[in-house]
Amino acid sequence: MEEQVITYIKEHRERLLDDMKKFLSIPSISTDQTYDIHMKEAASFVEDYLTDIGFTTVERMETGGHPLVYASYDGAGEDAPTVLFYGHYDVQPVDPLELWDTNPFDPTVREDRLYARGASDDKGQVFMHLAVFEAYMKVTGGLPVNMKVCIEGEEEVGSPNLYPLLKEHADRFDADLTVISDSGMVENDQPTILYGVKGLTGLEINVKGPNRDLHSGIYGGSVRNPIQALTHILATMKNSNEVVTVKGFYDDVEPLAEEERAQIKNLPSEDFPATTGVKETVSEEGYTAAEHTMGRPTLEINGIYGGYQGEGTKTIIPSEATAKITCRLVPGQDPDHIQNLLEEHILAHAPTGVDVHVKKEAQSAKAYKVEPEHPYIQKAAKSYEKGFGKETVFIRMGGSLPIVEWLDDIYQKPIVLMGFGTPEDRLHAPNESFPLNSFDKGIETLIYYWQEISL
Amino acid sequence: MEEQVITYIKEHRERLLDDMKKFLSIPSISTDQTYDIHMKEAASFVEDYLTDIGFTTVERMETGGHPLVYASYDGAGEDAPTVLFYGHYDVQPVDPLELWDTNPFDPTVREDRLYARGASDDKGQVFMHLAVFEAYMKVTGGLPVNMKVCIEGEEEVGSPNLYPLLKEHADRFDADLTVISDSGMVENDQPTILYGVKGLTGLEINVKGPNRDLHSGIYGGSVRNPIQALTHILATMKNSNEVVTVKGFYDDVEPLAEEERAQIKNLPSEDFPATTGVKETVSEEGYTAAEHTMGRPTLEINGIYGGYQGEGTKTIIPSEATAKITCRLVPGQDPDHIQNLLEEHILAHAPTGVDVHVKKEAQSAKAYKVEPEHPYIQKAAKSYEKGFGKETVFIRMGGSLPIVEWLDDIYQKPIVLMGFGTPEDRLHAPNESFPLNSFDKGIETLIYYWQEISL
Repeated sequence: MEEQVITYIKEHRERLLDDMKKFLSIPSISTDQTYDIHMKEAASFVEDYLTDIGFTTVERMETGGHPLVYASYDGAGEDAPTVLFYGHYDVQPVDPLELWDTNPFDPTVREDRLYARGASDDKGQVFMHLAVFEAYMKVTGGLPVNMKVCIEGEEEVGSPNLYPLLKEHADRFDADLTVISDSGMVENDQPTILYGVKGLTGLEINVKGPNRDLHSGIYGGSVRNPIQALTHILATMKNSNEVVTVKGFYDDVEPLAEEERAQIKNLPSEDFPATTGVKETVSEEGYTAAEHTMGRPTLEINGIYGGYQGEGTKTIIPSEATAKITCRLVPGQDPDHIQNLLEEHILAHAPTGVDVHVKKEAQSAKAYKVEPEHPYIQKAAKSYEKGFGKETVFIRMGGSLPIVEWLDDIYQKPIVLMGFGTPEDRLHAPNESFPLNSFDKGIETLIYYWQEISL
Repeated sequence: MEEQVITYIKEHRERLLDDMKKFLSIPSISTDQTYDIHMKEAASFVEDYLTDIGFTTVERMETGGHPLVYASYDGAGEDAPTVLFYGHYDVQPVDPLELWDTNPFDPTVREDRLYARGASDDKGQVFMHLAVFEAYMKVTGGLPVNMKVCIEGEEEVGSPNLYPLLKEHADRFDADLTVISDSGMVENDQPTILYGVKGLTGLEINVKGPNRDLHSGIYGGSVRNPIQALTHILATMKNSNEVVTVKGFYDDVEPLAEEERAQIKNLPSEDFPATTGVKETVSEEGYTAAEHTMGRPTLEINGIYGGYQGEGTKTIIPSEATAKITCRLVPGQDPDHIQNLLEEHILAHAPTGVDVHVKKEAQSAKAYKVEPEHPYIQKAAKSYEKGFGKETVFIRMGGSLPIVEWLDDIYQKPIVLMGFGTPEDRLHAPNESFPLNSFDKGIETLIYYWQEISL
């Protein structure tokens, strides 16, 4: 049966690519109000497509922001699992436009890549799912699994309305597993399953000294400098071996298993000095850079400011100084607890003569990890291998995906992160693209997967 | 003879105050080109005044920027010393104008203080000298000393043209001593001679990491954070006991003499927590805050910036981070040598994985100190005591005066810093003022001083 579905795809490839281009040509930039009409246009495209191919329940849900498209199919029967497919139809802004070789909303194929804003993140990958649904519907009259579709329009602005909506309609979105294709493979043509993402917590440190900038000649030597105080605090939080020196920070960290470390060692890895211009990589003492990024918690100062920032000198003791910190967390670590530990550390290391304030950031997320041995994951790996003709690698990611944290919080069901992007896709940047290789093999992979988990 | 001169002042006090108000009413703001016409007006006021009272050589010297007024009197004869009197006719900007109780260029007396921009810094104090010259000229037909007058118009913009001009005309400005009234007394009505000012040196540290801001999820754990690197460097430069921990920093410091420390102890001191809002003062281990500010070198971070400075969080590893540092130096320390020591320290403490650049600031100054026992200083103290009826205190200042460094560099002659301002004058701020008490007693002090050193 899969073979016929695959044949359908092959026979309709050019028309499907044209449809995908139509979807990509809609400038659905969620961050900019002037594109609101195109947001509705993109939502309609998804609605219409799902309706046209045979979904009987297709609905636009208002969120307070950009609408979410919901659809469901329950024709696979009670024995078949129910899948929640999540994706998003909104895209990042395109500036600076002059750096694009072709118009970001005029999808263009060059050297086996489709160039367009959203080609990889995430409209292109959403469309692959639509194509697979179409092929199954047309060839077999239905899908092998029951399906709930959730395509939102606010991912690029942090999905401010999604969690409340999911909570409110928890039954509606409930499923046996979630599948998300909004990530990438470790390299082009290399099947990759993301089985863990990091959590996140953050805070801001503000150090207040005098009630105004002071003349360093009149007051220097008598008044604590808030920048100096801040640097003293920050320097105590992570040492030069990249070890976080906040008491208790690592206490609940789920250790990296030996097999995970072995796996990470064998992964193809980005040449960071070549791609980012750094002189060399650094990492937590006792861990490789890849291990640290994928499987160990991190602490970063994201911003710092205080005093004079102009040309030349200004001989002042500034009134205050501020730093912003976020931590990427791993399984075992509780974001709120870590935030408390950081705050305790900061206040305990506050020098005399200044006031140190900690502002805890509200946005936080627990890390998520699914066992790679879980049947839904193993079947995804198997489908991937059939699609790409290569063994699947399993990775954990240093980034955080709020949707994953929220779904885990509400449902505690496995989340299968099978994305088909590549490191060369230039997400959020000029000349975003998506390889046609991923389009073709990814679609086959999804065809195999729905069949595989229906058994 | 002095008594007659003082009587002249008393008889003409109201007219002299009116003349001073005329001078102060000219908005001679040197930092703003739109006031250029008023700069010429203020220079003309000084020129005309000096000419009218009897100076035969009065000249406007072009500097490339705002003109300098030069005048000389050599009628005191070869046995009398020659004095260089330095002052400036330019003032600071007045914004925010709404914080002034009366217009900054409509000089107004309230509660025995004259309110106007420049009342204390420095037009008011310059005018006191003009009044004394007038009184001597009118009463005695000349001055007891030979006089060279140097009133510049660029002090508030850092006197960019003064040092080259002094060098070029070194003979013309040469004198046995310099007198400057551009500073203050430790408190109202307390005769104060400044016998030392600090030097200055500065640099900027720039830490470069990746060639762009990086996603902290994708790269965090593999790439050194430039802000973290910068805070590590900065934290090694001064410890929490306010001791500079740069090797060699204190090597050439001329120690504070026991008598100086005793003197400092007895000085009236500003209540820093009350005036600046800090919780408490801090100071170099082993020294009081006043000792540290007046007589020990300091290191301040004047500004720091890098990464995200907006609302909320942005999960990046920033591309770079920058800090600005200046040191106030004491006698014995060479600015260039200290700058080199700082650079060596910074580069020696540069973490791996980042590029650390040091940009040395060109502007620097040696500290200056004159022996309080020098006859010209002792006579100034004596005159001060006659003028104010109180014993003079001798202080060293934490600030730096470029003119002092330059005169010392060119002439190595004593510089007498006898200013009549008070801590309440609000220099550079709204509602600048000058006490009439200082006007009256300061003029008497100067009358005594010219007589005193002529003997």
